[in-house]
Amino acid sequence: MKAASTMRVAMLVALLLGAAVWPARAADREALLTQPGVYGSFAAFQMDHDWWDLTGEARVIAVSEVKGLIEQFSQKIAIESYLLRGLSDHADFMLRVHAPALSDTQQFLTSLLGTRLGRHLVATSYLHGLTKQAVYAPGFPEQMKKALQPPANDAGAKSYAVVIPIRKDAEWWALDQDTRAALMQEHTQAALPYINTVKRKLYHSSGLDDFDFITYFETDKLDDFHSLIRALEQVKEYRHDRRFGHPTLLGTIRPLDDILELFAR
Amino acid sequence: MKAASTMRVAMLVALLLGAAVWPARAADREALLTQPGVYGSFAAFQMDHDWWDLTGEARVIAVSEVKGLIEQFSQKIAIESYLLRGLSDHADFMLRVHAPALSDTQQFLTSLLGTRLGRHLVATSYLHGLTKQAVYAPGFPEQMKKALQPPANDAGAKSYAVVIPIRKDAEWWALDQDTRAALMQEHTQAALPYINTVKRKLYHSSGLDDFDFITYFETDKLDDFHSLIRALEQVKEYRHDRRFGHPTLLGTIRPLDDILELFAR
Amino acid sequence: MKAASTMRVAMLVALLLGAAVWPARAADREALLTQPGVYGSFAAFQMDHDWWDLTGEARVIAVSEVKGLIEQFSQKIAIESYLLRGLSDHADFMLRVHAPALSDTQQFLTSLLGTRLGRHLVATSYLHGLTKQAVYAPGFPEQMKKALQPPANDAGAKSYAVVIPIRKDAEWWALDQDTRAALMQEHTQAALPYINTVKRKLYHSSGLDDFDFITYFETDKLDDFHSLIRALEQVKEYRHDRRFGHPTLLGTIRPLDDILELFAR
Amino acid sequence: MKAASTMRVAMLVALLLGAAVWPARAADREALLTQPGVYGSFAAFQMDHDWWDLTGEARVIAVSEVKGLIEQFSQKIAIESYLLRGLSDHADFMLRVHAPALSDTQQFLTSLLGTRLGRHLVATSYLHGLTKQAVYAPGFPEQMKKALQPPANDAGAKSYAVVIPIRKDAEWWALDQDTRAALMQEHTQAALPYINTVKRKLYHSSGLDDFDFITYFETDKLDDFHSLIRALEQVKEYRHDRRFGHPTLLGTIRPLDDILELFAR
Amino acid sequence: MKAASTMRVAMLVALLLGAAVWPARAADREALLTQPGVYGSFAAFQMDHDWWDLTGEARVIAVSEVKGLIEQFSQKIAIESYLLRGLSDHADFMLRVHAPALSDTQQFLTSLLGTRLGRHLVATSYLHGLTKQAVYAPGFPEQMKKALQPPANDAGAKSYAVVIPIRKDAEWWALDQDTRAALMQEHTQAALPYINTVKRKLYHSSGLDDFDFITYFETDKLDDFHSLIRALEQVKEYRHDRRFGHPTLLGTIRPLDDILELFAR
Repeated sequence: MKAASTMRVAMLVALLLGAAVWPARAADREALLTQPGVYGSFAAFQMDHDWWDLTGEARVIAVSEVKGLIEQFSQKIAIESYLLRGLSDHADFMLRVHAPALSDTQQFLTSLLGTRLGRHLVATSYLHGLTKQAVYAPGFPEQMKKALQPPANDAGAKSYAVVIPIRKDAEWWALDQDTRAALMQEHTQAALPYINTVKRKLYHSSGLDDFDFITYFETDKLDDFHSLIRALEQVKEYRHDRRFGHPTLLGTIRPLDDILELFAR
Repeated sequence: MKAASTMRVAMLVALLLGAAVWPARAADREALLTQPGVYGSFAAFQMDHDWWDLTGEARVIAVSEVKGLIEQFSQKIAIESYLLRGLSDHADFMLRVHAPALSDTQQFLTSLLGTRLGRHLVATSYLHGLTKQAVYAPGFPEQMKKALQPPANDAGAKSYAVVIPIRKDAEWWALDQDTRAALMQEHTQAALPYINTVKRKLYHSSGLDDFDFITYFETDKLDDFHSLIRALEQVKEYRHDRRFGHPTLLGTIRPLDDILELFAR
Repeated sequence: MKAASTMRVAMLVALLLGAAVWPARAADREALLTQPGVYGSFAAFQMDHDWWDLTGEARVIAVSEVKGLIEQFSQKIAIESYLLRGLSDHADFMLRVHAPALSDTQQFLTSLLGTRLGRHLVATSYLHGLTKQAVYAPGFPEQMKKALQPPANDAGAKSYAVVIPIRKDAEWWALDQDTRAALMQEHTQAALPYINTVKRKLYHSSGLDDFDFITYFETDKLDDFHSLIRALEQVKEYRHDRRFGHPTLLGTIRPLDDILELFAR
Repeated sequence: MKAASTMRVAMLVALLLGAAVWPARAADREALLTQPGVYGSFAAFQMDHDWWDLTGEARVIAVSEVKGLIEQFSQKIAIESYLLRGLSDHADFMLRVHAPALSDTQQFLTSLLGTRLGRHLVATSYLHGLTKQAVYAPGFPEQMKKALQPPANDAGAKSYAVVIPIRKDAEWWALDQDTRAALMQEHTQAALPYINTVKRKLYHSSGLDDFDFITYFETDKLDDFHSLIRALEQVKEYRHDRRFGHPTLLGTIRPLDDILELFAR
Repeated sequence: MKAASTMRVAMLVALLLGAAVWPARAADREALLTQPGVYGSFAAFQMDHDWWDLTGEARVIAVSEVKGLIEQFSQKIAIESYLLRGLSDHADFMLRVHAPALSDTQQFLTSLLGTRLGRHLVATSYLHGLTKQAVYAPGFPEQMKKALQPPANDAGAKSYAVVIPIRKDAEWWALDQDTRAALMQEHTQAALPYINTVKRKLYHSSGLDDFDFITYFETDKLDDFHSLIRALEQVKEYRHDRRFGHPTLLGTIRPLDDILELFAR
């Protein structure tokens, strides 16, 4: 690429990506991210090698098409983005989509894959789950319930996100509700020391993919996250995890603009 | 693509796809979809990346060729279509084919793969099964039998479909018929609360692929479907599922015209 | 392709494929197909996508080269062909080769892969086994031996073929010969009702591939075949199958000319 | 390539690679390589086949771009390189990166993948772990602690490196700390005879990838390393390794310049 | 390719391959093939489809480059070649390399992959092991030791080679040395009947790849080899094989010239 062309591309990037205001409606978004009965999908993508054979300008235009699409869908669904490149095998970025219905998510992802950029994407993993009211927490001791309150000063953005899907063994589901509740109380107790530094969110996925749960974590302190997982491996409930990870998706939380810019350059 | 060319493609799409009347003979179709002794095949396909290097017009012509083929075969076999893109890994759409013989299904799928569009399809999963009279239901209590009647107001189309293939362990098959019947009665009892919102169909596949059963679900309420699977995981029969899913195929029920249009654009 | 060119291709197909006389020497062939001490190989192939970028004429010429090769080798080995396309994942057709030595089979398959068509083939599975005198049958009761005679009216060709490779667990091989013989008698008893409609052939493959046996089936009645497998899953010997299928190869028995024609068109 | 062009490439290689001074700051580097609380990442890459379609000059320029990038990042992170080609499947080289934070490692690897050379790299495995103070060693007998001191004459560079990731079973984590400590003392005792010839380093990876530990080895005597692994397989702690290797990465320790030169030629 | 060009290629093949004298120094080679403390590597390769797009002349030149390389390295390492094509999935040929150090093997394989032909090779499996003095044999009864002597008339070349890698379970390694010796004596007794027709060689690979052993077989009588494996499956030691094969590599022993000629044509 010649110098003049490079400058033109740089300007296009600035024009097309620079003014992104996203997402559109904070209130709906907040509801999607916090309410039960919402579908959460994790979609990891890899860019194929042909993408880089496009001219820089073609890439910039393709990226701006995706930008427009995201803005349009952000009226209805909440889309978050993660850079997996350099941390997770076979994936460059991941989208987390919260939507009132999976058909909305499908409409968005199908549109995304139909863009000029999308034709170069390979979808390497889709995981889907449903948010629910906490199942066991209502029976926990009051002190534990109190400890489980999210910290007041949780405003700051986290840096890292990890997704670990889990499949329980048949024994787990055969246990009666009280036994499971007791095991989950032990599990929760082990997690308490990390409540201030590791944010967790649980999705129920039985029937929607090959897992029973998707566990999602955000943290600034990866070593605390590691210690949390170690602590959870040591409680009895862990013996019932027939599959834990495979894949484990590790990435950094990034505005989609930053991620797309990597592919526009 | 220039504007004139785009319009021409749009017109071609309208002409070729707009007037679809499918399937041809409702009565035969009804028999295929409801009778025992029918072969059901699930074929999931992915479009390769080269497809998008064709011109828009070439794609429209290729799509219309498939349309013609489907109409022709709909005299003999029942073909239903599902959009998997954006919901299932490594698959764009799925066909469910009901036919009196698997050789009919093969003839259709071979013809499909031989079309201009078919040369760009990668077949990612084939599952085959046979419909049978209910094996255990005849021995169930009368009340349960009555509860198992499909609801009168089941006319409406469902939105989502899920395919979960299952392989039982050797212990299961070694149980005597009465024990299996008792376990299946417990299984069925757990499923009853969802009978009005989740439609189920069972295919027997031992020997036809690497599974023993293909379980097929249709629903408008994915959360009910998820709760149904959770309920089924908690009965004793679930302990005998050596493989459950892998793959789990999740998609939306869509007319083939809609799906093909996605690939013609 | 223009009309004139299409006609020329059609004529070439007629000339090159129309007059196939295959195989050459029925007597030797019969011996290969029925005697012990013969090597049976199952080779499943998939055509790559580049094949379809060749001109129709180039494809016809390439197909005729394969035809010649098959005729030449049919003096020494027995080659049978199956269409897997539309029924088995990741495979378009399968060859079953019976030869006095695996080096003969290798010479043939290497020659096949070296043809213009062969360069477009991807070999997706090779399974090899050895035919032997029946191991357990000599000790079976007379009545069972008599029942195991192939039916007199078995002249007709079958439509479907299924290949299921099997690996036994270590427990199986640790059983003494009498115990294994008793379990195989129970196995054989379960199979007897299907002796007239499902033809079976056994290959011993320990050491030649990752399996212990290759079980091969031919039938016109796929539902009987399915019932046979179900019956075999219910006997005690089945508990010793560490791997059963993976892959299960399902196809229709077809003259190679028919199969090649599909790829010449 | 003509002779003149070949010479020009050779000169470019000499100019661009010949004067490499790497890494920049030995002190920081030493801290990263020896302190607890550091993130270690293992990234194995394969060069795609298209790379070789570039001209020799284009390859040399692409390689020099990577050289510059490495020098720039060596201010902040420690990067070591290994040639896996010819020893490990599906990988040509591996980088071991020590960084204070995984986001630094990601920034480097993302930059690497964004270079002209990086666009031809396929990332085949990423493994991540955290260095910690020894967990069990403080409770070992004094004599063992003394034996565990690294030998005084360990200055020399080693030739081979092996990476073996490990996942423990749930039983392991359910053992109490004292039992685990006793088992690790037996493990350590078995390893003592090899302390002078095989250098070991442990990374804790639970939650960061699909493993619990990454074990890293350097040696000049591969037969001693093999004997060490054999000895470790014979202690009771080994029964708790649910996964051991898969992948096992074996290579030789090489300056990145040497490795890149292989790809510039 | 025109007739004149074809003739020219044929002449080039004759000139370049016809006069092969390989390997160079028989004495060193003999030591490498028979002494303990030698590294044996098994490298299986597949030719990519692009290879066949080269002109016949380019292929001949590329093949002759490999020929030269092999001659050069045969001073230091022993290289044997096997044709896997038509017998093993996903592999065209295999090299067995014996070298005093794995770094020599890597230097050779890296050079091979760097040739014009090598750029079209995909390395599908690398297995590495170390030869050792027999571990259990010294304690066997004298009669068995005598029976284990290789037959006097073993001069003749064998036709077939099979490679079966093995991973033992943790129980095996936890057995005491005497118990393992007794089990290996039973194993050896079962193998004795085949000592004249099946040549075996054992490589120890713990830590060097994902296996504990690589077992290598040569035979003219594949049915005897099959019977040997069957016999070995029936002894108690077999229960401790956690993985047996996967891959099983089956091929014919062929001079590299013959194999390369297949790819030059």
